[in-house]
Amino acid sequence: MDELQAKQQEVYKLLEDALSDEQIDRFRSEFLEIHPYDQSEFFEAQSEQMRSLIYSYLSPEEMADLIEHVEEDLVGNFIVEMNPAYAAQILSELATDDAVDILNDLDKNKVASYLTIMPKESSDEIKALLHYEEKTAGSIMTTEFVVVTTDMSVKDAMRHLRKEAPEAETIYYIYVVDHDQQLVGVISLRDLIIAEGSFTIADIMSDRVVSVSVGDNQEDIAQMMRDYDFLALPVVDFQNHLLGIITVDDIMDVMEEEASDDYSKLAGVDVDSVDHNPIIAAKKRLPWLIILLFLGLFTASIIARFEETLNQVALLAIFIPLIAGMAGNTGTQALAVAVRGIATGEFQKQGILKILIREATTGLITGLTCGIAIWIIIYVWQGVFFLGFLVGLAITATLFVATISGALVPLLMHHFKVDPAVASGPFITTINDIISVIIYFGMATAFMQFLI
Amino acid sequence: MDELQAKQQEVYKLLEDALSDEQIDRFRSEFLEIHPYDQSEFFEAQSEQMRSLIYSYLSPEEMADLIEHVEEDLVGNFIVEMNPAYAAQILSELATDDAVDILNDLDKNKVASYLTIMPKESSDEIKALLHYEEKTAGSIMTTEFVVVTTDMSVKDAMRHLRKEAPEAETIYYIYVVDHDQQLVGVISLRDLIIAEGSFTIADIMSDRVVSVSVGDNQEDIAQMMRDYDFLALPVVDFQNHLLGIITVDDIMDVMEEEASDDYSKLAGVDVDSVDHNPIIAAKKRLPWLIILLFLGLFTASIIARFEETLNQVALLAIFIPLIAGMAGNTGTQALAVAVRGIATGEFQKQGILKILIREATTGLITGLTCGIAIWIIIYVWQGVFFLGFLVGLAITATLFVATISGALVPLLMHHFKVDPAVASGPFITTINDIISVIIYFGMATAFMQFLI
Repeated sequence: MDELQAKQQEVYKLLEDALSDEQIDRFRSEFLEIHPYDQSEFFEAQSEQMRSLIYSYLSPEEMADLIEHVEEDLVGNFIVEMNPAYAAQILSELATDDAVDILNDLDKNKVASYLTIMPKESSDEIKALLHYEEKTAGSIMTTEFVVVTTDMSVKDAMRHLRKEAPEAETIYYIYVVDHDQQLVGVISLRDLIIAEGSFTIADIMSDRVVSVSVGDNQEDIAQMMRDYDFLALPVVDFQNHLLGIITVDDIMDVMEEEASDDYSKLAGVDVDSVDHNPIIAAKKRLPWLIILLFLGLFTASIIARFEETLNQVALLAIFIPLIAGMAGNTGTQALAVAVRGIATGEFQKQGILKILIREATTGLITGLTCGIAIWIIIYVWQGVFFLGFLVGLAITATLFVATISGALVPLLMHHFKVDPAVASGPFITTINDIISVIIYFGMATAFMQFLI
Repeated sequence: MDELQAKQQEVYKLLEDALSDEQIDRFRSEFLEIHPYDQSEFFEAQSEQMRSLIYSYLSPEEMADLIEHVEEDLVGNFIVEMNPAYAAQILSELATDDAVDILNDLDKNKVASYLTIMPKESSDEIKALLHYEEKTAGSIMTTEFVVVTTDMSVKDAMRHLRKEAPEAETIYYIYVVDHDQQLVGVISLRDLIIAEGSFTIADIMSDRVVSVSVGDNQEDIAQMMRDYDFLALPVVDFQNHLLGIITVDDIMDVMEEEASDDYSKLAGVDVDSVDHNPIIAAKKRLPWLIILLFLGLFTASIIARFEETLNQVALLAIFIPLIAGMAGNTGTQALAVAVRGIATGEFQKQGILKILIREATTGLITGLTCGIAIWIIIYVWQGVFFLGFLVGLAITATLFVATISGALVPLLMHHFKVDPAVASGPFITTINDIISVIIYFGMATAFMQFLI
């Protein structure tokens, strides 16, 4: 792929020269030859001045092809810097779902003015989608799809398809509706091509059509599309009316977004885009760090209560990072397993109690293994018997409790349909820090007579 | 989707009844109506005895459709329990890439015997793919694709397509080769359908065809497919000969696998499948915990060196979890940003030095903010000026160093093309624990005169 990149850099150089020399024909002939994604990469790298030249060189249709591939966080700014009539034309040329994505991020007044300028047909379609909640089927579906009716012949259907193909988002699945616009079947283009022209659609369609409801969650839909290897899924309302379709390219974006989301939660920082400005990067990371600061102070205040114990055996302090660190990590492991189990649906099949018993047993096994190991190591290394026993016991108890808490928090939140954003990695880690310190110093205080 | 699930449970119940009554006709008529993914879900839930009934009820072609959807970790066991001739027939019916995936996980002797039993054409195709390295284009491509030549007419191409359609993995992109089998163009089925029958392929094909090389990494290919919204990508060798195609359904599995991989590394546990047995779950989690135990002992030995400092001011110990915890978390944040930046290619565009300077600045900003905050809080809360100053200074220095180390480790590993598996979350966290303890106690010892 390195060769490819070198070739691309060459083309980009040519384009930049054509732009700076304001050679519209040379620019257009080169630019329109490359893939819209490459166009968008080139476009994103240009200065505002160069971009305004590009707007004047490309038709709204041509610009729309490019805009479809621009990064989500940037596209709003570009739309706003265009003249409103041009922007409105682009928005009406885009697939409805892409237009809605962009408009959702813009100022309400701007949205209203774009919708007024564009053709009524487009603005009606967009308005219909604008009110769906984010991350539902409704918000990611498009309304440009091909439908046929059961009584059409294969030949008529092919003719209809040829006419609709240039506008449709996909023509590889054709949905079949009855006279009430209710979804009754589906045919793949593959089957349509193989079929004899004299058959009717009813003869060759599959009536076991899998559809999703307009309010369904996008993560579930992604899972479904991946399981069934679909290229598109129809979206219906509660009366089974066909409202739109979701295509696999949008689902790939959803998968990327959800994976990024889970990852961000575990790390305690939004990793969605790389910030070039350290102040912005720091702003993204500080919220969690400040919360952890206060939780850490709380931990400190707990240890302070054991000041007397500490004064008597200062050596106790040297094992604090070990115990807290292992509690934090075992909690993160349990959290990660639970979050993935919930996401893939593996956990829905089992009850919460069964999962918790399994996690508790796992915690007990890891706890006992690590606890006995540390006891032996400290005894061999330091020659002290009881300190090793204490640390080992504390580790066993800590890993047991930390494993349960790591699994319990996301499970409970999922059960009560709370957004599990709070169950992020740093939070669980710190909670388990606190638990581990209480267990460790509590035990040390109780067994003080054996330590001094 | 709950309604859908209820309906499915009903069908599964029917199927189970038909199986236990050994009613082959009733079973087949119901079973072959449902989607192969649902067939696989049903199949996976059956006992060995029931499965052997299913093998005797379904033809190898029917069984192959189902096997394609079975979970990757399970499918090998099912193949092995079938009689070898039946298994070989199934393997030859599968898409080549799927057959290769299965065979890669089996015992070498088994693989040889299956390849001997199956038709030579299939075994040749499979053997050709078996030697590609895992996670490369070659290992995920399939060889069932449709090619046409430049001089064909659109009408002839459509006729050819109709004949090939039932066998091909996708017919929605048709690749164009010259007489040397070199890839020269591509046409989408959409364009082919719209075109007039009298044109030749050369007239309507696009000659700017994007392809990947057979050794390219699967993660890069997934990124490419997502960026360009392709449904399939052609795979070529160094002489640009067309070897196979990669389809979007395989890429969705790659995306899921890579996301799961990144997530597992951050959590320090393989989250790929949910273990029902706590002993197996514990075995998966213990490796990291044992490593952390030894790293934690190392941390303990460092603090032990400051025993004198600790004996003089035992109060120092209460801030250990706070400082170590914040160092661990800030390191994980920096690690997560770096890992994602590398994965999305954002970081390749910039030099390592530039990224490090940015991370260092970010660490300095977060460090100063948290350091000053804690200084003020401890002063107000405890009324001690110098202890607050010391903790604040230690936090500032720690966050600065921990941020750099969190970013540096994955960057260096990527630069030297080392597998970044070592840069997992727990490792970075513990390294930063150690750094933070050294900084904190080092400072405390240096400034001891102000503390007592």
